[in-house]
Amino acid sequence: MDNGIVISSRVRLARNFAGYPFPAHLDSEKSLALTQKVYEALGKGEEKFSIVRISDMGKQQGEALKELHLISDDLLRINKYSAVIVNKSNDVSVMVNEEDHVRAQCILPGNLLAEAYEKISDVDDMISAGNNIAYSPSLGYLTACPTNVGTGMRASAMMFLPGLSLTKSLEKCIGAVARFDMTVRGEYGEGTSSEGYLYQVSNAKTLGLTEKDIVSGVSVAVEQLEKNEITARQLLLEQKGTTLRDGIMRAYGVLTNAYTLTTKEFMDKLGLVKLGVWYGFLNCDDVSKLDELAKDCRPANMTLKSGKNMDSEERDVYRAEKVAETLSTLVRKTKN
Amino acid sequence: MDNGIVISSRVRLARNFAGYPFPAHLDSEKSLALTQKVYEALGKGEEKFSIVRISDMGKQQGEALKELHLISDDLLRINKYSAVIVNKSNDVSVMVNEEDHVRAQCILPGNLLAEAYEKISDVDDMISAGNNIAYSPSLGYLTACPTNVGTGMRASAMMFLPGLSLTKSLEKCIGAVARFDMTVRGEYGEGTSSEGYLYQVSNAKTLGLTEKDIVSGVSVAVEQLEKNEITARQLLLEQKGTTLRDGIMRAYGVLTNAYTLTTKEFMDKLGLVKLGVWYGFLNCDDVSKLDELAKDCRPANMTLKSGKNMDSEERDVYRAEKVAETLSTLVRKTKN
Repeated sequence: MDNGIVISSRVRLARNFAGYPFPAHLDSEKSLALTQKVYEALGKGEEKFSIVRISDMGKQQGEALKELHLISDDLLRINKYSAVIVNKSNDVSVMVNEEDHVRAQCILPGNLLAEAYEKISDVDDMISAGNNIAYSPSLGYLTACPTNVGTGMRASAMMFLPGLSLTKSLEKCIGAVARFDMTVRGEYGEGTSSEGYLYQVSNAKTLGLTEKDIVSGVSVAVEQLEKNEITARQLLLEQKGTTLRDGIMRAYGVLTNAYTLTTKEFMDKLGLVKLGVWYGFLNCDDVSKLDELAKDCRPANMTLKSGKNMDSEERDVYRAEKVAETLSTLVRKTKN
Repeated sequence: MDNGIVISSRVRLARNFAGYPFPAHLDSEKSLALTQKVYEALGKGEEKFSIVRISDMGKQQGEALKELHLISDDLLRINKYSAVIVNKSNDVSVMVNEEDHVRAQCILPGNLLAEAYEKISDVDDMISAGNNIAYSPSLGYLTACPTNVGTGMRASAMMFLPGLSLTKSLEKCIGAVARFDMTVRGEYGEGTSSEGYLYQVSNAKTLGLTEKDIVSGVSVAVEQLEKNEITARQLLLEQKGTTLRDGIMRAYGVLTNAYTLTTKEFMDKLGLVKLGVWYGFLNCDDVSKLDELAKDCRPANMTLKSGKNMDSEERDVYRAEKVAETLSTLVRKTKN
């Protein structure tokens, strides 16, 4: 059964076309030509893809796509003629002219790393077919940044780790995982702090191993962290039951009643509410709806959905209203 | 209309019998004789009084009566043969052998100082009838402590002043009131800090003025503070509307969901909830029930009512459950 600890699984591949400078040094003509090349290649499959060019993208839309992990900050910065190509279900996104010519990713909800790898491999095959991809027999795929050379692959899982975080044992577990060349970071990657007890676990190395090695390596790390997390949750209940339950119930009380809520506070308290559902202090028939709510309440996504022009103070009030509305129906106190 | 700012009005008189040492130096025989004298005097009226002797009183019961302002700490300390005599509605309580032989008080809900004075005067007349009360034509009533000599009277009002407290203008208002020989203190008198934004306003002087002077003096001070409080609340709404509403709604959220609650936190957050009802952020058909809840949730009263033997951690959990139960039905969010 899905215990909600692995929120999503993601695999991304970095690819470049031979004979073209990397995007940072690519002129407009070649940038556009590459974009067209990738879009056409993807058009040959069964799945329908749509393209959004950065030049046509409003600031809010760009932010919204970043919040959903469909594009990166670099896509908006490195090359003026960059674009993102996504499938209908939004689980495959191909960035063109980010740091590399192609950054193709598949992101699936839950613990589905192998499936994500399979799906993105198909996409990779489509792009490679009939195109000359930069590849060295000794090194593997060539990329703009040496850290990606080799497989050009990063496999990661977004994990919900409140137990490890609240028992302050995350550091130790990260250390253990790092010995297997894994990295643990905040939800939005390097240098971002964790919100809502969400952590990204990914491979640190891309060179000298196969793609399957990477997928199985990350899977093992995820499995280990999952076990640690469950142990930590049990410990927390035994040692600090009252404080724990109180903190969770207060978080629920604030989320269902506050008049204003920042994203950070919302995410952290939502994390506690989800933990409360796991313990059975709170009832929720469909926890995945809480993760959806988390996405919908990110600043840019929320603003776009609302159709309103809001400053940050108004947005926090609007968020509080939405959250209270949704949570009051979705999550209920368990009878003692 | 009652705006809930004056919670209760209280008048107490200090009296002593001529020819008897003060209670601190009174032997057992005389202590018991005096108690009997007072109890008999009160028995002559229409109202039925009952007597509780300190020697028969459990620790919890003593604490409970203190929490309800029916007895003082000194009653439990100064003389082993002290007692309290109360009427059925608990609004008249006569302490025998506290600091003085007789401390008679009337406490009424709301802004009813004149009525409280009238009622306690009748009680005073009953006690004085046929008894020799220590009185000096030049000084007035004689008391154990010189600060009570004269009228032996203290008139006070319990006021709910969140506006003045949150705008940090209470100090200034206390200063203004002090110039008219009034004192402002926490709910449980001298040296106690305020909980739940409750403050006791009383006369500082008992000598050189009449009882009616005192009642009207306190009434004027109460009226002034009431006006200041309303102005402060309006200012707060204008200047810090979002923060104010947010704080109130969170207090409500915590009180209806927390798993554990100390008295202090409960009182402070209940104060915010009451303020929220005043502003119309929250709906409550009967605010006086919130003040009743406050009494019922004091440690000793709650323990007695529960019929359970609880340590302080269990009591806080029990309180949280009671409060959530009561508030969820009594107070509702207003639709925005």
